[in-house]
Amino acid sequence: MNSKPILEESEKSALYQKGMEELHKQLGSSADEYIKQLKSISEEFAWVNVAFPFGELYSRNILDLKTRELCTIAALTVQGFALPQLKLHIRAAIRCGASRPEVAEVITQMTAYCGFPAATNALLIMKDVFADESKQEE
Amino acid sequence: MNSKPILEESEKSALYQKGMEELHKQLGSSADEYIKQLKSISEEFAWVNVAFPFGELYSRNILDLKTRELCTIAALTVQGFALPQLKLHIRAAIRCGASRPEVAEVITQMTAYCGFPAATNALLIMKDVFADESKQEE
Amino acid sequence: MNSKPILEESEKSALYQKGMEELHKQLGSSADEYIKQLKSISEEFAWVNVAFPFGELYSRNILDLKTRELCTIAALTVQGFALPQLKLHIRAAIRCGASRPEVAEVITQMTAYCGFPAATNALLIMKDVFADESKQEE
Amino acid sequence: MNSKPILEESEKSALYQKGMEELHKQLGSSADEYIKQLKSISEEFAWVNVAFPFGELYSRNILDLKTRELCTIAALTVQGFALPQLKLHIRAAIRCGASRPEVAEVITQMTAYCGFPAATNALLIMKDVFADESKQEE
Amino acid sequence: MNSKPILEESEKSALYQKGMEELHKQLGSSADEYIKQLKSISEEFAWVNVAFPFGELYSRNILDLKTRELCTIAALTVQGFALPQLKLHIRAAIRCGASRPEVAEVITQMTAYCGFPAATNALLIMKDVFADESKQEE
Amino acid sequence: MNSKPILEESEKSALYQKGMEELHKQLGSSADEYIKQLKSISEEFAWVNVAFPFGELYSRNILDLKTRELCTIAALTVQGFALPQLKLHIRAAIRCGASRPEVAEVITQMTAYCGFPAATNALLIMKDVFADESKQEE
Repeated sequence: MNSKPILEESEKSALYQKGMEELHKQLGSSADEYIKQLKSISEEFAWVNVAFPFGELYSRNILDLKTRELCTIAALTVQGFALPQLKLHIRAAIRCGASRPEVAEVITQMTAYCGFPAATNALLIMKDVFADESKQEE
Repeated sequence: MNSKPILEESEKSALYQKGMEELHKQLGSSADEYIKQLKSISEEFAWVNVAFPFGELYSRNILDLKTRELCTIAALTVQGFALPQLKLHIRAAIRCGASRPEVAEVITQMTAYCGFPAATNALLIMKDVFADESKQEE
Repeated sequence: MNSKPILEESEKSALYQKGMEELHKQLGSSADEYIKQLKSISEEFAWVNVAFPFGELYSRNILDLKTRELCTIAALTVQGFALPQLKLHIRAAIRCGASRPEVAEVITQMTAYCGFPAATNALLIMKDVFADESKQEE
Repeated sequence: MNSKPILEESEKSALYQKGMEELHKQLGSSADEYIKQLKSISEEFAWVNVAFPFGELYSRNILDLKTRELCTIAALTVQGFALPQLKLHIRAAIRCGASRPEVAEVITQMTAYCGFPAATNALLIMKDVFADESKQEE
Repeated sequence: MNSKPILEESEKSALYQKGMEELHKQLGSSADEYIKQLKSISEEFAWVNVAFPFGELYSRNILDLKTRELCTIAALTVQGFALPQLKLHIRAAIRCGASRPEVAEVITQMTAYCGFPAATNALLIMKDVFADESKQEE
Repeated sequence: MNSKPILEESEKSALYQKGMEELHKQLGSSADEYIKQLKSISEEFAWVNVAFPFGELYSRNILDLKTRELCTIAALTVQGFALPQLKLHIRAAIRCGASRPEVAEVITQMTAYCGFPAATNALLIMKDVFADESKQEE
């Protein structure tokens, strides 16, 4: 058995390139670092992570990025275990035009769907992100 | 031990009344039926369900209702087990100004956060809601 | 490869017999039907289900059965997907001395830990169980 | 848009005050610290957390606090991700009269409903809480 | 805003075609019906479902399909809510060379990781699949 | 109430002894340390953890241990919160003959069933395990 790529490199890189553009829009300069970390674990996983959610799902012009990011924050809040990803997407939401109170409001609203523990842990992560960003702005 | 209400009825009904107004905005005429069903199970649960998420969380003027409903759809999609509530909130999202493609887009985006099975089941529910609504419009 | 039992039958049946006694305490006459259904799927699974939770976990004299059943109802409520098992354990809780309002109270309390959708679905199941039992008492 | 409180302050503070009393019963002197932390993140969230689960759900006289806390431990164990909250409620259970073996027994029983990984992680947290408390008693 | 496809059709259809080949290997003649159902809900979702898991993830030559399907059965069992998808993948596992006792064994093993309720519900689904297949073979 | 063992010691230890043999096959020399940690928390929990999954479930000769471990990795990946246990079972999978790319492949495949956040966190754990093992081999 081998693990030869199933698509021509050119085809795969079209999706990948589109995904990296999208990722930069959302994460700014931390996009490269994020992908570098994933690549150090698995080239395949890095490729699908860029190509599929960012090259395909997020790049469709049906919802604006701010709304998409708030929906992702809702999803990661109720899941409860995805706190590193929540950190990333709170930053992305702010970059895409969400205000801090809007981010806090989505997480608070989730209390009705996931209860207090998951929402509390998400708010603690949010507090860290905001504190980090305030420090960097100084 | 008794289970006497801990707040004066007047105080409790202020939150409740606010919640019912909010619930009508979102669910329209089906709000009454929804609460009637809950009351037939537990008066206490019906009260907290109206007073807390609708009287308090949803009624704060920080996010518009359409964004709130899309975030709720995101949350219920990734949880996977809350299909009756998803049905309710897809209807509410449409009432609050979301288009059908926007609802489909949020659920499709969730694939990246919950995988295909949960997203597929959410889309099947969405299809049922849209079919029901199309039938009623005829 | 074969699947020869790893313990002497005599030893295994000691755990199993203890488990069936415990199961009868909790489920009454429906215990036999429950195990018969499991056996029709998998003898192995029926054995571990009787021997492990009922022969071992539930039979330790540290908590009374009513408290154990209320804790199980709490667990199954927050999981959201285990509604057939919730039905079984609501019946068991009643058999073990819990009142109907106590069962409703545990589920309602869970709202704070799992949100409204999971708690609502659990209350709907509870309502069915209580309606069934009221019918049988007539 | 503004976010003016929807109820008169006097009404809201009735629920809040009731909730703080309840919280002190359960958490003792650490209640104030807990709420201070939440307030530093979001005044709104702190309010709903005190008013709703503690002012409303826990304060109803249908179940004794020890049983309530054991049910909450069951719920947080099976969720798997809510370990900080589990710590808090293990302390609360002990304050409300549960013995250490009873707390261990509820978590062990949960193995049947959530498997070994979630139960193991809960027991490790429990061990930390008991070690902390033993140290303070010295 | 429009939702123009982000890749040339030719590129996208390479991934899609590869995915459909893979899907046929796993599901046989029911692959077409499955995709037809998805397309009736959302063309976009049907495309990503074929292209991503089947065109990309499953088609890499690192694990044999039988092992992949058993891993998927493990995953869907512990999630608890994905019973329609479990049905599909139990059929796929059998097509890919797994024996019935092997499928039952994976689900039974999962009891240690997800508890009895999720495993019981998965075994009930498995029983249905096996009964259906036995009927068709007659 | 007392907590006298429900089975004769001799019977209980047959299951336990079988489980410890199995555990050594999978975890090697770290099996003793693992059980010692569990015993320091709860003798009962350590007993059921050895006796039930290892003495009973894993020791049946229907699936080879490598396949079993890959299925467990799949399960722990989609659960999202069981990262310490995932670490243990990645080590066990390697001991039972799985290659590093096979472990990475199972986790990557899970993306389709649990989304990217859970799979990313699992891959980060895997990277740590592989780095630890590479260091020990030097």
